[in-house]
Amino acid sequence: MRVRVLGTAAGGGLPQWNCGCQSCCRAAELGVQLSQDCLAISGDGNSWYLVNASPDLRTQLLATPELRPPPGTRRTPVEGVLLTSAELDHTLGLLTLREAARLPIYATAAVHQALRQAFPITEVIGSYTAVQPQTVSDRQVLTAGLAAEIAVVGDKRPRYAGELRGTGWVVAYRFTGAGRSLVYAPCLPAWSDAFEQIIDGADVVLLDGTFFTEDELTHASGSDRPASSMGHLPIRAALPEIARHPRTRFLFTHLNNTNPLAHPDAPELADLRAAGAEIAAERQLLVLE
Amino acid sequence: MRVRVLGTAAGGGLPQWNCGCQSCCRAAELGVQLSQDCLAISGDGNSWYLVNASPDLRTQLLATPELRPPPGTRRTPVEGVLLTSAELDHTLGLLTLREAARLPIYATAAVHQALRQAFPITEVIGSYTAVQPQTVSDRQVLTAGLAAEIAVVGDKRPRYAGELRGTGWVVAYRFTGAGRSLVYAPCLPAWSDAFEQIIDGADVVLLDGTFFTEDELTHASGSDRPASSMGHLPIRAALPEIARHPRTRFLFTHLNNTNPLAHPDAPELADLRAAGAEIAAERQLLVLE
Repeated sequence: MRVRVLGTAAGGGLPQWNCGCQSCCRAAELGVQLSQDCLAISGDGNSWYLVNASPDLRTQLLATPELRPPPGTRRTPVEGVLLTSAELDHTLGLLTLREAARLPIYATAAVHQALRQAFPITEVIGSYTAVQPQTVSDRQVLTAGLAAEIAVVGDKRPRYAGELRGTGWVVAYRFTGAGRSLVYAPCLPAWSDAFEQIIDGADVVLLDGTFFTEDELTHASGSDRPASSMGHLPIRAALPEIARHPRTRFLFTHLNNTNPLAHPDAPELADLRAAGAEIAAERQLLVLE
Repeated sequence: MRVRVLGTAAGGGLPQWNCGCQSCCRAAELGVQLSQDCLAISGDGNSWYLVNASPDLRTQLLATPELRPPPGTRRTPVEGVLLTSAELDHTLGLLTLREAARLPIYATAAVHQALRQAFPITEVIGSYTAVQPQTVSDRQVLTAGLAAEIAVVGDKRPRYAGELRGTGWVVAYRFTGAGRSLVYAPCLPAWSDAFEQIIDGADVVLLDGTFFTEDELTHASGSDRPASSMGHLPIRAALPEIARHPRTRFLFTHLNNTNPLAHPDAPELADLRAAGAEIAAERQLLVLE
């Protein structure tokens, strides 16, 4: 199993285009750019699935040689997309893929409903290519020895889909191939039983690192919205849980522009290192063999 | 008047993510990246308007220091967006702007209709910020001494909006400020009277350079679609028209991935130079004072 981290930031990326906070200004000065969270995963290194389709997908694909079509062809190695939610920062990149010959999209019934009714992305893409919506079941067989299981970890609907009902709005995926396993959970509101179960014995877990602390937005921008109200377990609250899984490698992703850990010289990284956890890096390759 | 070229490629950019044609492979090898066409324009260098909102808008804004908010603020210098069409490669970037405090969008009635009905982008953005739709009239007063006029240059509807009626689907803008003028026409199906009239006496014209020749796609990809059937006047057909306007500076933009002129060592550039025209460059600054 090979996994390429395509992007590691929360919605808006770092810097965020309209934000002059200290972290965004510093990133702009240093030329640091974190793109919005997205993953590519493959069982054999040839056929790849995207997990989420970020608005930055075009540049993320171009920065990843293994996702380019062979010269003289339009045979993209991208087999399909699995979605962890219907949030715009996880789905807008689907529109970039409209030139594909066909586009399988794996998601829960609730997420498909949002993309069909509240914001008809799949219908629009259907004017350009053959969209193949698949409702993810408990165990999804993909190509090249890869399989995926889901755990529902949250029920926060995207703001644009506030009228819709249903459950299964936010999921984590556990991918397995040749006896190894990786969990991807870029949005995790709480360390629930369902999450504990899906990460059990996993080799690698990439998880929600949106905020370092519960009150981070208050300090950064005067907002009164704590992390938990926005559907994100802060890193500091996740660290004690991680300590209970010493055989699993944990990497945080989906970092908000206010998160101090987005900068490699942050003193707060010492807490992370002490817990044996890491921050996922843009374009990082994970090889699980 | 200051004008920053944010992107110079047609839909898909160069390289295109799923295309292994000679031009895309060469661009990938050399690290050349052309982003999708978009412009920023200002009367005073402080308040800026975007013309079109490309899917690449996030990285385009980040690459343009004058469009960043001042440190410690969220006061974006972006005052609003003017659209030349409802095509996805001109409108998807609107979704990137949803974090703005407010978002004025200037477009024809037909384009607003597509963004409200066929693909409700403006409604979705309305869940995040205050969208202020403005129907562009013959003469639109903007801020800081800037004004805009439009000419309808085409009636090709986006594929996703094929069911909609109306006229005014593709327009060119003429911007004026302090006695200088610039025309932006990234899609131009023909050198019409309306176009001739709006460029009359203009200092600078940025125009449709999608294809160099009428049968370019046939050679590059075996497609049987000539440039004219896709709503684009090929550069070679525009050059004799340009020769009749020796006092105006012409720059081609919106280059397709198959266009040889996207590469700076193309022999075909000699024809362009002979006609006194240029290819617009990514991030190019035009100062009209």
